[in-house]
Amino acid sequence: MKTVRPHKSRTVGLSPGTLKENKNPENNSVVTVMSYNATSLEERTISSLDELHKYKSADAVSWINIDGTEDSESLKKIGEIFNLHPLLLEDISTAEQRPKMDEFDEQLFTILNMLSFNSEKNCITVEQVGIVLGSNYVLSFQEAGGDVFDPNRNRIRNNKGKHRKYSADYLFYTLIDTIVDNYFIILEKIGERLEDIEDSLISEPTNDILNDLYKIKRELILLRKSIWPLREVLMKFEREEYELITDSTQTYFKDVYDHTVQIIDTLESFRDLSGGMLDLYMSSISNRMNAVMKVLTVISTIFIPLSFLAGIYGMNFDYIPELKWKYGYFGFLASCLTILIAMLFYFRKKKWL
Amino acid sequence: MKTVRPHKSRTVGLSPGTLKENKNPENNSVVTVMSYNATSLEERTISSLDELHKYKSADAVSWINIDGTEDSESLKKIGEIFNLHPLLLEDISTAEQRPKMDEFDEQLFTILNMLSFNSEKNCITVEQVGIVLGSNYVLSFQEAGGDVFDPNRNRIRNNKGKHRKYSADYLFYTLIDTIVDNYFIILEKIGERLEDIEDSLISEPTNDILNDLYKIKRELILLRKSIWPLREVLMKFEREEYELITDSTQTYFKDVYDHTVQIIDTLESFRDLSGGMLDLYMSSISNRMNAVMKVLTVISTIFIPLSFLAGIYGMNFDYIPELKWKYGYFGFLASCLTILIAMLFYFRKKKWL
Amino acid sequence: MKTVRPHKSRTVGLSPGTLKENKNPENNSVVTVMSYNATSLEERTISSLDELHKYKSADAVSWINIDGTEDSESLKKIGEIFNLHPLLLEDISTAEQRPKMDEFDEQLFTILNMLSFNSEKNCITVEQVGIVLGSNYVLSFQEAGGDVFDPNRNRIRNNKGKHRKYSADYLFYTLIDTIVDNYFIILEKIGERLEDIEDSLISEPTNDILNDLYKIKRELILLRKSIWPLREVLMKFEREEYELITDSTQTYFKDVYDHTVQIIDTLESFRDLSGGMLDLYMSSISNRMNAVMKVLTVISTIFIPLSFLAGIYGMNFDYIPELKWKYGYFGFLASCLTILIAMLFYFRKKKWL
Amino acid sequence: MKTVRPHKSRTVGLSPGTLKENKNPENNSVVTVMSYNATSLEERTISSLDELHKYKSADAVSWINIDGTEDSESLKKIGEIFNLHPLLLEDISTAEQRPKMDEFDEQLFTILNMLSFNSEKNCITVEQVGIVLGSNYVLSFQEAGGDVFDPNRNRIRNNKGKHRKYSADYLFYTLIDTIVDNYFIILEKIGERLEDIEDSLISEPTNDILNDLYKIKRELILLRKSIWPLREVLMKFEREEYELITDSTQTYFKDVYDHTVQIIDTLESFRDLSGGMLDLYMSSISNRMNAVMKVLTVISTIFIPLSFLAGIYGMNFDYIPELKWKYGYFGFLASCLTILIAMLFYFRKKKWL
Amino acid sequence: MKTVRPHKSRTVGLSPGTLKENKNPENNSVVTVMSYNATSLEERTISSLDELHKYKSADAVSWINIDGTEDSESLKKIGEIFNLHPLLLEDISTAEQRPKMDEFDEQLFTILNMLSFNSEKNCITVEQVGIVLGSNYVLSFQEAGGDVFDPNRNRIRNNKGKHRKYSADYLFYTLIDTIVDNYFIILEKIGERLEDIEDSLISEPTNDILNDLYKIKRELILLRKSIWPLREVLMKFEREEYELITDSTQTYFKDVYDHTVQIIDTLESFRDLSGGMLDLYMSSISNRMNAVMKVLTVISTIFIPLSFLAGIYGMNFDYIPELKWKYGYFGFLASCLTILIAMLFYFRKKKWL
Ligand SMILES: [Mg+2]
Ligand SMILES: [Mg+2]
Ligand SMILES: [Mg+2]
Ligand SMILES: [Mg+2]
Ligand SMILES: [Mg+2]
Ligand SMILES: [Mg+2]
Ligand SMILES: [Mg+2]
Ligand SMILES: [Mg+2]
Ligand SMILES: [Mg+2]
Ligand SMILES: [Mg+2]
Ligand SMILES: [Mg+2]
Ligand SMILES: [Mg+2]
Ligand SMILES: [Mg+2]
Ligand SMILES: [Mg+2]
Ligand SMILES: [Mg+2]
Ligand SMILES: [Mg+2]
Ligand SMILES: [Mg+2]
Ligand SMILES: [Mg+2]
Ligand SMILES: [Mg+2]
Ligand SMILES: [Mg+2]
Ligand SMILES: [Mg+2]
Ligand SMILES: [Mg+2]
Ligand SMILES: [Mg+2]
Ligand SMILES: [Mg+2]
Ligand SMILES: [Mg+2]
Ligand SMILES: [Mg+2]
Ligand SMILES: [Mg+2]
Ligand SMILES: [Mg+2]
Ligand SMILES: [Mg+2]
Ligand SMILES: [Mg+2]
Ligand SMILES: [Mg+2]
Repeated sequence: MKTVRPHKSRTVGLSPGTLKENKNPENNSVVTVMSYNATSLEERTISSLDELHKYKSADAVSWINIDGTEDSESLKKIGEIFNLHPLLLEDISTAEQRPKMDEFDEQLFTILNMLSFNSEKNCITVEQVGIVLGSNYVLSFQEAGGDVFDPNRNRIRNNKGKHRKYSADYLFYTLIDTIVDNYFIILEKIGERLEDIEDSLISEPTNDILNDLYKIKRELILLRKSIWPLREVLMKFEREEYELITDSTQTYFKDVYDHTVQIIDTLESFRDLSGGMLDLYMSSISNRMNAVMKVLTVISTIFIPLSFLAGIYGMNFDYIPELKWKYGYFGFLASCLTILIAMLFYFRKKKWL
Repeated sequence: MKTVRPHKSRTVGLSPGTLKENKNPENNSVVTVMSYNATSLEERTISSLDELHKYKSADAVSWINIDGTEDSESLKKIGEIFNLHPLLLEDISTAEQRPKMDEFDEQLFTILNMLSFNSEKNCITVEQVGIVLGSNYVLSFQEAGGDVFDPNRNRIRNNKGKHRKYSADYLFYTLIDTIVDNYFIILEKIGERLEDIEDSLISEPTNDILNDLYKIKRELILLRKSIWPLREVLMKFEREEYELITDSTQTYFKDVYDHTVQIIDTLESFRDLSGGMLDLYMSSISNRMNAVMKVLTVISTIFIPLSFLAGIYGMNFDYIPELKWKYGYFGFLASCLTILIAMLFYFRKKKWL
Repeated sequence: MKTVRPHKSRTVGLSPGTLKENKNPENNSVVTVMSYNATSLEERTISSLDELHKYKSADAVSWINIDGTEDSESLKKIGEIFNLHPLLLEDISTAEQRPKMDEFDEQLFTILNMLSFNSEKNCITVEQVGIVLGSNYVLSFQEAGGDVFDPNRNRIRNNKGKHRKYSADYLFYTLIDTIVDNYFIILEKIGERLEDIEDSLISEPTNDILNDLYKIKRELILLRKSIWPLREVLMKFEREEYELITDSTQTYFKDVYDHTVQIIDTLESFRDLSGGMLDLYMSSISNRMNAVMKVLTVISTIFIPLSFLAGIYGMNFDYIPELKWKYGYFGFLASCLTILIAMLFYFRKKKWL
Repeated sequence: MKTVRPHKSRTVGLSPGTLKENKNPENNSVVTVMSYNATSLEERTISSLDELHKYKSADAVSWINIDGTEDSESLKKIGEIFNLHPLLLEDISTAEQRPKMDEFDEQLFTILNMLSFNSEKNCITVEQVGIVLGSNYVLSFQEAGGDVFDPNRNRIRNNKGKHRKYSADYLFYTLIDTIVDNYFIILEKIGERLEDIEDSLISEPTNDILNDLYKIKRELILLRKSIWPLREVLMKFEREEYELITDSTQTYFKDVYDHTVQIIDTLESFRDLSGGMLDLYMSSISNRMNAVMKVLTVISTIFIPLSFLAGIYGMNFDYIPELKWKYGYFGFLASCLTILIAMLFYFRKKKWL
Repeated sequence: MKTVRPHKSRTVGLSPGTLKENKNPENNSVVTVMSYNATSLEERTISSLDELHKYKSADAVSWINIDGTEDSESLKKIGEIFNLHPLLLEDISTAEQRPKMDEFDEQLFTILNMLSFNSEKNCITVEQVGIVLGSNYVLSFQEAGGDVFDPNRNRIRNNKGKHRKYSADYLFYTLIDTIVDNYFIILEKIGERLEDIEDSLISEPTNDILNDLYKIKRELILLRKSIWPLREVLMKFEREEYELITDSTQTYFKDVYDHTVQIIDTLESFRDLSGGMLDLYMSSISNRMNAVMKVLTVISTIFIPLSFLAGIYGMNFDYIPELKWKYGYFGFLASCLTILIAMLFYFRKKKWL
């Protein structure tokens, strides 16, 4: 799981809007384009960034996806082609931004965290995605390859859904919607683990529960950091009027906004639930400790005085009259039994037994 | 009790507004109609959805109740007849939505959680209900058969109350009002259990208290998730002006809004109370542990040193002068008694006895 | 003390505005009237509700007090005479309403909780009071006989204060003011008990403290449920303009609003204080447990090894050379003393002694 | 330290605006006047309240300070001279008011808590001060003699600062500013004690820490009750326009408002810090308990079984073969040593040693 | 690390706007100037404050940095030259101000906390910086020499970035931006320490963890006190219109505002995380205590009764029949073994082993 630590120190001291120049050929951006209208679809990988110019003025909706945000040369070039503000580019190239939304002269820009559940490694992966909405194009900048957008691509290819009929703002919305939908999968996984913990809490509490609850707490903190600002972003899309977003698409933004609120409600429920489980676990530890102590106390309280009694008659004084009595030994045993029974009554009265 | 886990993953990747197509004849929707005005009442179960057309333009108020929201074919058909937005239908067909309210061109739409206490299984059942208010009709979509609306049906049948005189918005209100009223029954049940726990806390605390308090915590979390958004929904009905809702009905919405606030107040009180009970329980455990430890310590502190003393005179050294003394044994007993009494004084001074 | 559990289930399923018909002659309402102006005062108990008609149009301020809200016939009759909304009557006849304020065409209506300290039973009694302000009358509906308004009655009788000179809204204010003043008495009682607990916490903590703190917590929860909505009600009277309330009376509402804020501040302080006391108590338990454990450990750690040593020389092996030594016994005692002293030094170094 | 308990019960049942008549010659108010303009200064103690009339219309700024608010006759008289509202007088004569600000036709009125550190008794003293700002006069009502205003008096006498040049609103401001400045001294004292506690927590935690932290908690609660409403009061002075307050003075109110926010920030920090210290203390107790328990367990676990072994060979059975063996005793000692060493290894592995 | 205690008491009683006169030659302010436009750059240290006059009307942007704020003579002189309000000067000369922003007729003024990580002493140093923005100059007042602005100076010198092209408001922004960027370094250090604690919590919890978590808590409190008001300051710069700040610079203020929100999010995450770690640590202590107690109880419960049994047959009664039996000893050993095995089964069933 990604850590919560920020790694922004490298840019400290640079002029605002400056892109880092750690040019490494392995990090070259990979740019793919899907350009479509109701009747045609072009899908390709770009070899030279100059090819992008035509999509800016095309009579089609173009989705330009850029994988890899450390290639500052390419970012600058794309920025020039689409007239992107330096601060926008800086945000894209800086990992671990807070999700947010900015309005520029010709574009709307949003930064989101794309969460996906990696079922192989059984962990959550987080990738920052910056999405730019222009008049007839959408730019999506991802930190690295691999994303959750395959269903979107398939819907465009199959001419299903409303993708091919609507304009770029609808594409912009569907990308965000897909990202938000994937939060539900993460929540479902966490919910399953919480139920497992709950079951084991009641049947047979083990020490692993503590670590499991702590890990869930960490993941909930990570999710909170992503979803609260995302809700703010979507509230803006729902409430405010933007030229680039049509009325019919804004209705859809209300829907995805509702989803973020639902996610937050579920997050808070999980938080309360896991807090309740921790309480339950802690008190059951105390209860078990109490039970242990009672056993120790009962045994000790009964046998330590009896041992002392036995010790007395094990002494080697020349003159201990009881030792000479005929029924001394049996009298001793009877005394012990009496003491034992009295003790048991006492403990029963105290509800220790 | 329903779990708090969301089950939305099945719709991830689908185009927004798409209904799931898991068509299973067992899940076919059952549609019933009550159509009435001040003088007449028609009550029937629909066999073909085409029969619904006439209620849209009838000179009567029509309450069309649909049980079963997994029958996507029927939902689509009903959607066409009453001109419902695809997102509205998607919300209806998706379980575990957050309660909310949406305004469409021709309708008001709200999603609520209908809670009812199942006295057989001694549990709370939750069912999602979507209610659509049109000009002269109300559509209620339920996940499955069985609901809390029988009193409403009886009032319409008996021509009691204001139902038969008022328009569709009043019917819409009474359905919501009945749902909210049922929250009070749930609260009453929880309140009774809290009182039981409180009584047993003071008289004779047992370990079951922990599990009981945790279960109540779970139920309060579930209730919170339903009632807070419901309050938001009703605040809108109370505060804002809608064409479909008359002024006289809006007064009634203020009343039901007050009820949600009262429910929330009681919920928060229950939360505080159960928190206080947990504190009380935890500290009483600590107190009892303390009492147990004191007994152990008093007994051990008195008898372990005495046993050592007895052990000394049980040794087999050739030369232990005390063993020869005539009153050695009685001197030993007197010493033990002295130590015992001194110890008891000490513990009494320390308030351990 | 009244419980926090709602008892609304009886009205579930009834049409909104319906009054329960559990007509029981014992519950007949008792209606008394004080009708006064600057020069005259009429004070009487009503035998027939028809007598109330004249007070609606009288040239005097009339305070009509109704004790008993289960007599639905009388409520309906009064409602007809003074033209009261059905929802208003429903609120009055339903116990455990949330304090609130409603504006109707001809009246202002408020529901409050009247708290009084019952010094005989040493408990807080809560009674719901509904007050209706009309143009020249005030209706006060109480659940049962007995209230805190005697000082108000005396001021009217004695022609002291401003009562007899001012109009109905001033009477309305003074009733609310008296109710709020009584909250301070409750707070004072709780404050005294908190001080007692604090004293005993520092001098001699007992287990009763836990129950006392829990009881105070319960009472604070009850008070919170009454005072927070009351503050909302009074904020409306202070901030908004109502035809029925004159400017000079509104100044007085600001004063009583200030009192509710002060009550809330004190409530929150009490909550924090009692939380702090619980912490203090819990930690002092831990501390005492620690002290107990140290005594046990010191004694055990010293004498258990010594007992073992004595046990060795109590063995009956044929050949144990030490037993034959002349100073074996005294050597043994010296060893024990050495170990004892070493142990004491060790514990002193560890600060256990 | 003043307790947090309200003492308002005496006024319950009185007509609003009524002053208590507990006339006691000892409580007679002492009235002093400083009347000044840029060129002249008159400073005196008033013997007859009628002398106050002239200051209302004087061509100078007059500061009239009244010590003692239980003298209802004098309060009424002053109220008549300066035309004060009855509710204003009631507030002044009632101790433990919530700090607040009211606007009247001719005056601004504020109630504050004047805190000062009494270095003799090493405690905080709280005194309620009511300040009235008129067109050319300031009235300050104090519960009793003694205040923090001597620096203000000296600045007026020495014609230093801006006092003598500015109008009454600047005097009004400087009094409030001085009161707020004294909160910083209180905070500094609490801060020093927190640092002391922190030092002793790390070096050598004692049980006094609990009481010290609780006392600080009490004082922080007291401070919170004074400073939060004070901040509200000053926010009004900063934000709203009042005829009696000039623009240049309002700039100064912004400064003192900033101070209250800073005080609140520091209060909240202290609260968090003392909470953190309590956590640290509680966990260090648990840690020490753990250490104690380990010692007990190690010693008991080693020597109790060994003692049993010694007990076996101390038995007096006629036939115990080992007792006859030549090296029985040394074999026994060797076994004990082996067990001891094995145990020590085991505990070391478990990290108990 | 700087303490959280305020040290404002020295100014209590002084007239508002008065500067302290603790004139100490060592504390003389050091004033340096960077004055530049697109083509030229002048950089120098000022020997006489009169030289500053020319920068007020120069045709260049001038950054005047003052190190040392205890030199009241110099502050007054600079105040006269640049026409600074007395309250502004007082704020600058008073340490531990709350970060804030004030608008004056000719200037914008802000107070910030400059945090830097001192890698030598491994601690956070805090220095208060007051920054004044005039039409063509920026004044920065620092408590002492040494700051984080060297990257800014270098960018001006190297004519890199936008510094030399833009006006004074851009310089003003870059100073604030650099201060905010340094908060990320602090957060990164704290994040690393939190990860270290987390690692050691899971692998091998030690008692140092408590102190480490407490220290982090202290630092987070310090950071909160600096960053929340800083966010308020930057929100003003982002939202409101100021004559001195151009539109293009305001876009940059939005960026730095976003950073403060991100810092706050991270702070809150750290708070939650360290709270979770404390919970984890405390419960692991309880768990270990439980384990210790179980070992003690198992050993004691088995061997104390057995020792008593051995003690019985070590008694010296004349007549104990068992002692004469031939297989008495072996019977005894067999009984012990039976008891031992029964006990082990019992403990295994109770899950203690
Ligand atoms: Mg940025
Ligand atoms: Mg990533
Ligand atoms: Mg939040
Ligand atoms: Mg929400
Ligand atoms: Mg919510
Ligand atoms: Mg919530
Ligand atoms: Mg939806
Ligand atoms: Mg259901
Ligand atoms: Mg509420
Ligand atoms: Mg509330
Ligand atoms: Mg809440
Ligand atoms: Mg009602
Ligand atoms: Mg009642
Ligand atoms: Mg509340
Ligand atoms: Mg308040
Ligand atoms: Mg408050
Ligand atoms: Mg509050
Ligand atoms: Mg008052
Ligand atoms: Mg006082
Ligand atoms: Mg508060
Ligand atoms: Mg603030
Ligand atoms: Mg603040
Ligand atoms: Mg804060
Ligand atoms: Mg706050
Ligand atoms: Mg200042
Ligand atoms: Mg500094
Ligand atoms: Mg906050
Ligand atoms: Mg935020
Ligand atoms: Mg935030
Ligand atoms: Mg947050
Ligand atoms: Mg909170």
